[in-house]
Amino acid sequence: MLNGRHLIDIKDFSKQELNEIFDLADQIVKNPEDFSHCCDGKILATLFYEPSTRTRLSFETAMLRLGGKVIGFSEPNSTSVSKGENIADTIRIIGCYADVVAMRHPKEGAPKVASIYSKIPVINAGDGGHQHPTQTLTDLLTIRSIKGSLSNLKIGCCGDLKFGRTVHSFIKAMSMYENNSFTLISPRELKVPEYIKRELDKNNVVYKETKKLEEVIGELDILYMTRVQKERFFNEEEYIRLKDSYILDKLKMQEAPERMIVLHPLPRVNEIACEVDDDPRACYFKQAQYGVYAREALIMKLLGLEL
Amino acid sequence: MLNGRHLIDIKDFSKQELNEIFDLADQIVKNPEDFSHCCDGKILATLFYEPSTRTRLSFETAMLRLGGKVIGFSEPNSTSVSKGENIADTIRIIGCYADVVAMRHPKEGAPKVASIYSKIPVINAGDGGHQHPTQTLTDLLTIRSIKGSLSNLKIGCCGDLKFGRTVHSFIKAMSMYENNSFTLISPRELKVPEYIKRELDKNNVVYKETKKLEEVIGELDILYMTRVQKERFFNEEEYIRLKDSYILDKLKMQEAPERMIVLHPLPRVNEIACEVDDDPRACYFKQAQYGVYAREALIMKLLGLEL
Amino acid sequence: MLNGRHLIDIKDFSKQELNEIFDLADQIVKNPEDFSHCCDGKILATLFYEPSTRTRLSFETAMLRLGGKVIGFSEPNSTSVSKGENIADTIRIIGCYADVVAMRHPKEGAPKVASIYSKIPVINAGDGGHQHPTQTLTDLLTIRSIKGSLSNLKIGCCGDLKFGRTVHSFIKAMSMYENNSFTLISPRELKVPEYIKRELDKNNVVYKETKKLEEVIGELDILYMTRVQKERFFNEEEYIRLKDSYILDKLKMQEAPERMIVLHPLPRVNEIACEVDDDPRACYFKQAQYGVYAREALIMKLLGLEL
Repeated sequence: MLNGRHLIDIKDFSKQELNEIFDLADQIVKNPEDFSHCCDGKILATLFYEPSTRTRLSFETAMLRLGGKVIGFSEPNSTSVSKGENIADTIRIIGCYADVVAMRHPKEGAPKVASIYSKIPVINAGDGGHQHPTQTLTDLLTIRSIKGSLSNLKIGCCGDLKFGRTVHSFIKAMSMYENNSFTLISPRELKVPEYIKRELDKNNVVYKETKKLEEVIGELDILYMTRVQKERFFNEEEYIRLKDSYILDKLKMQEAPERMIVLHPLPRVNEIACEVDDDPRACYFKQAQYGVYAREALIMKLLGLEL
Repeated sequence: MLNGRHLIDIKDFSKQELNEIFDLADQIVKNPEDFSHCCDGKILATLFYEPSTRTRLSFETAMLRLGGKVIGFSEPNSTSVSKGENIADTIRIIGCYADVVAMRHPKEGAPKVASIYSKIPVINAGDGGHQHPTQTLTDLLTIRSIKGSLSNLKIGCCGDLKFGRTVHSFIKAMSMYENNSFTLISPRELKVPEYIKRELDKNNVVYKETKKLEEVIGELDILYMTRVQKERFFNEEEYIRLKDSYILDKLKMQEAPERMIVLHPLPRVNEIACEVDDDPRACYFKQAQYGVYAREALIMKLLGLEL
Repeated sequence: MLNGRHLIDIKDFSKQELNEIFDLADQIVKNPEDFSHCCDGKILATLFYEPSTRTRLSFETAMLRLGGKVIGFSEPNSTSVSKGENIADTIRIIGCYADVVAMRHPKEGAPKVASIYSKIPVINAGDGGHQHPTQTLTDLLTIRSIKGSLSNLKIGCCGDLKFGRTVHSFIKAMSMYENNSFTLISPRELKVPEYIKRELDKNNVVYKETKKLEEVIGELDILYMTRVQKERFFNEEEYIRLKDSYILDKLKMQEAPERMIVLHPLPRVNEIACEVDDDPRACYFKQAQYGVYAREALIMKLLGLEL
């Protein structure tokens, strides 16, 4: 039962619960307009203590497409934070206004704290470098929809694997499904953290690490590209030296198999050349569309609503 | 008749008009979903020249719960103010867009000026240190709903009684009802202004002033706590010395009668210890809920709408 | 067919297409409530990379009055721009969320670029000092509604004719209609640019230039006043010297014919004295109302919707 639950970490939900969400999302994908009154009379609060236009608009679109309504804020300086209010009080008051909350916060753990005091479901819409579970829902729904399954996949993750919040959640989630293997492609300075590798080892998930995308792209079913986030670097020189290292272009795509799909949580800077956009294997804009459907399904489940 | 009227100062409405609003709010409290289409096709404009997330979201929730829609802005820098436009022109244009306006402004009197030029009802959502009448509506609805009456009450007001806008309106409004008496609890530096006391005297309302909450808490029916607003102080040292003086905690609550309810306009900083939150007499979060119902009733009345 | 088209420059639409929009707007003016469900289930995205409260709220009101919903942002700092995303990617993602976009951008040409990559209609809501076609739609609808025709008019344009984006579009659009003539009233420093005059010459449109409003006001059918935009000046002294030069007041209005109507794109600063507001010929607030109707008609046409 997902009714009344919170989503803070993708691991909060069992594989079976995730499948329930994906099954509902599949229905929405097929007939989105059938769902246009499912949330009539319901209100989503989007509490964004850090701006993130894409994520916020994806949530708001999801709620509006379901017939629901939205209140909220998109930036910290328009909030009561400046008057010194704590998250516990805020969420208790928002619980008097809304039926479900999506919270983005620069501090890791803030949505978790909110969920403890909340009488309505709290969805973590990203907390610092920590968790971003609805991005992972989006990634998995995209793969399941396009590849037909979440198992038996050779998955490449490329770019900044050290600081990238979304790629960590993605690896953890995909390692829950049978017979997936990982190829972790990054510069030495931006390798995946040890705790992720320990988890993969513990679960007997096959993985390898490499520096060169060209050498492994031919083997992949999924290529998950990530942005080299400038704001994570302390050293601007290092950023400039590394940012172009892992650019996916037409030339590299020629080495990739027909079946391989390219994902990216977006926004991209230049890690995927624009010339790749028209390649039918480029699925990162489709991902944005699946993101809306995934959030629609999630909201319905947390509110205990059915078609 | 409240249809087409403005609400700038709580005194704009007679006791009978306030009762009309409270009677409608009572109905909404009982069956909120019966009212979910009362404002179909209507638009509320929230013009917030000063951020106030809680008040804004309360208004927006009220309108959305009635089936209406919302336009507006939440901060001054996204407005046309920077192009030098005056309030009179702004409100005339907003009158072409919306059916009712809630305006928050840092300058005292700005909503009054707006109402003079407006062809649609203007609600003052707080103007500087001056008026905040919908907070008072909320306070009164909460008391009426929980205590069953607005008369024959021993009311304590504690904290910053000098600068606190909401407590001034609260005292004025409650002194309109029969046989209420006031205990004004504050440090010497933050005593209630003389003009309020003169008004109490003029209306033969019984009140006393004291510095110690502990000595009077045992006699009260209502304890209205207020925030010591840092931004009202010029002297930071004085702020630090005073801010902890009037903290309501479990120990003080042991001296309070069973019948006493605690109100607070929120946000609180630390003037009410979190350990008090679970006390059944703590009604400040319920207040936030009543705030939505009070605003729903107000909007309906100003728009001349009925169930 | 306007279904699926973009509106970047008012010249994108033929006279016949403009008339289609005006004819629909006329119907909306007459019975606005008949249209209150035409956009049920549709979403407008308002992407304002530069604040412009009036224009944004006019678009949002238009969509809400049609039964549609709105997502968006009102300021650049809450967007993904700071993460380095380009407009092409943004619009492709917004195309997964919304059905139609209104974009305001400080850079000339940005909405044009967006339209190239967009799968949903893009409306230019103002790009730098360049185009603002929905203001022109508004101006023309106002004139057509009040004067009954867009032809055979003596049109005065007064104020800053050099930097004023809206007045350029207005002149170009009105010169498409038969037998209109222009009187261009401005200080020497703020005369209409040469390229506009060349276009008027090319189309054999009669016009004259003058410095004195008093000398020509008696001949006009339309007086289009514009704001002297402080932000366009590099020299503050020059601004102060010029800004009061072209103030329309009661005295000047006494020289104007009964039939003359005064328009202004708003906001005004002091170029129209408040004493003129009550003159029945002052139509600039009505213009704001027509602006909503014009945008309603435009949105319906671009979405291929009918009553």
